[in-house]
This record gives sequence, C-alpha cells and structure tokens, in this order.
Amino acid sequence: MKKRQARLEAIYQTAAELICRKGYEATTLGEIGAAVGLTKAGLYHYVKSKDELLYGMVNYAMDRVEEEVVAPARQIEDPKERLRAVTVNYVRLIMRTGGSLTMAIDESNKLQRARARRAQRRRRAFYDFIHQTIESAKEEGYLPGIDASIAALSFFGVILFMAEWYRPGGSLASEEVARQILSLTVDRMLLGDKPKPRKG
Amino acid sequence: MKKRQARLEAIYQTAAELICRKGYEATTLGEIGAAVGLTKAGLYHYVKSKDELLYGMVNYAMDRVEEEVVAPARQIEDPKERLRAVTVNYVRLIMRTGGSLTMAIDESNKLQRARARRAQRRRRAFYDFIHQTIESAKEEGYLPGIDASIAALSFFGVILFMAEWYRPGGSLASEEVARQILSLTVDRMLLGDKPKPRKG
Repeated sequence: MKKRQARLEAIYQTAAELICRKGYEATTLGEIGAAVGLTKAGLYHYVKSKDELLYGMVNYAMDRVEEEVVAPARQIEDPKERLRAVTVNYVRLIMRTGGSLTMAIDESNKLQRARARRAQRRRRAFYDFIHQTIESAKEEGYLPGIDASIAALSFFGVILFMAEWYRPGGSLASEEVARQILSLTVDRMLLGDKPKPRKG
Repeated sequence: MKKRQARLEAIYQTAAELICRKGYEATTLGEIGAAVGLTKAGLYHYVKSKDELLYGMVNYAMDRVEEEVVAPARQIEDPKERLRAVTVNYVRLIMRTGGSLTMAIDESNKLQRARARRAQRRRRAFYDFIHQTIESAKEEGYLPGIDASIAALSFFGVILFMAEWYRPGGSLASEEVARQILSLTVDRMLLGDKPKPRKG
C-alpha cells in the first residue's frame, strides 16, 4: 500500500511538471507514463483517465497544504503568529515539492463539473482560513483602511508567483528566501503599520 | 488603417479571453474568428497563423505596458514616486483592459523560438526597470536586508494575481481597489520601513 502511494505521488509530481510546461490539454497520459517509466497499461493500474489523474493530483497538492500549512497554524491563537507560521510552512512546502504542484491546482477548473466544484471548495476553505486570520489581525488594529479580501489576495499573489519563479540552487539559500518573503508579506505588507492606541 | 488597428485590437482582446479560459492549445483560430464575427477567411486577412496571432497579442499587451506604465514612470527621478506611478498605472491598465491580456503574456513561451526570445526580452526589460527602481530605493535606505530581486518578484506577484481575481463591478470601486493595492505593495511592502539615519 505504501509502495502504491509512493508511486502515485511520483506520478502526480511528474504530471504536474509536464502540465506546467506544456499545458493540460497538450499533455497525454502516455507521456506521463513514459516519464515515470510505466507503460500505458502500467499507468492504467494507477489512474483510469486524465480527469482522474488531474483530480488525484489536485487533491494530493491540497492534502499537503492542509497537513503541512493549515493544521499546524490552527493550533495558534494569535493571528500575527498564525500568519507567520502559515507563510513559512507554505513557502517551505512549495520549495520542497517544487512549484509545479502548486501551479497545477489552477487547472482544477478543467476537471469534470462535480470534481471541479469539490476542488474549488477545498481551495476556498484555504482562502477563507487566511481571510479570517487577516480579519482577526484587523480587529487588533492592523491594516486600517484595507479590505481583508484585498490583503488576502495580495498575500496569495506573492506566494503563488513564488511557486513560478523559485528555483533551488539560486544565489540565496532557500531559508534566506523564505525569511525575506516572510518579512515582505507578513511583517511589512500585512502587519507593518499597527496604529498607536489613542490616548484617553 | 485606424479601422484595421481597431479590429486587430478586438481580435487580440477576444483571443486573450478565450486562451485564458480554455488554454492556448485548445483554442482554435476558427473560434477566435467566430467570437469577433469573422469567417476564417476574414480572420486570415488580419492574422496568418495562431503563432502570429499569439505574437501580435503579446506585443500588443506589452506595448500598452510600455506606453502607459513605463514611459510615464521614466520621467520620474524619485524612486518612491516612480514606484507609486508604476503601480497605479499598471493596476489601472489591467482594470481597463481586463486581466486576460496580462495573463496571456504568460503564453509567450509557446511561441516559435525566435519570437519567444524576443517576447522574453521585452518582459525582461520591464522586470529590470522595476528591479532598478527598487535598487534606487534601497540606496536611500529602504528594504534593508531584502534582496531587490525578491522584492521585485513579490511586487509582480501581487499585481499579476490581481489580473486573475479582479472583476469590475465588485463591492469596492476600482479606484479604491487601486488605492489599497498601492498602499499594500508600495507604501507597506516596499517602502514601509526606512531605518532612521544614524546620529553622528
């Protein structure tokens, strides 16, 4: 069972990379199989259709986010510390698995309708978690005059684009990149300007 | 000539929307023609191939950025004011033309090689302009400890994701959205923390 799961994860990872490079429509099951060293019949043992593959891949990517980013952050009451934990764990997850898996979630609108809806609900739950955390920070006086939705979407913009541009082995160590992104998004963009409480 | 240009712009706009919805591979010249009310022969009068269409569209999108975002900002010496002008004009351009045209620039890696290289150079020139402006801000003491590349890419992340999520007619007026994005990206993320000069 563990071996099957490991093989499936290799298939998702490879599929994500091919889909990001060539586009979902232009990628065939045969190519994905070949890239992981499986015949078409061998691949069929794991996934029955391209739609099933995409759905499995999107869920796999979102399982990682749920387990490695959302679950640990739920334990943290303070919204500032929760935003920091989310950012560091999300950035590390993307760095470790590569950006393709994160970018491939975007293709979930190409799933057959019921699956697309379920994937959409999962994405939405993650967004809502960030949005609510930002709302809590606003209640403490952060982000005056800024809509929590625009702040949340701007936060996601930085991280999701990082999934596109980050390559391991660049001039900065990955932990240094993670530290700077934390500083830019959380400490500056979201929490940079708490107004002083009025004297009274 | 003016009429031809207007028709071409309508073709680019429509093609961008179709490509963003369906993917480049899955979009046919016939569909693009039908969507702008042209027969296949009629469309052929304007573009000879899908590659030519994509190349024209990408250049059209980058012409808009050059004219409406980069050219006005070049006149501004102060890097802080230049960053503000770039942001406001870039956000307004995306709001006016819709996000599809901006997102479609991403497809330029699917152009035939020489065209893909030329498009890549134009994108790079825009990135370098922002990067250099951020370097100038760093020379004034902004963004201590932050790499100008990571700052520039984070800035682009916010704006490019806005091209995906922004829909006119939302609960906030477009000028208010632009104001908040300016505040989040420039005033907080990039210019939020100038250290005080040392006393000496």
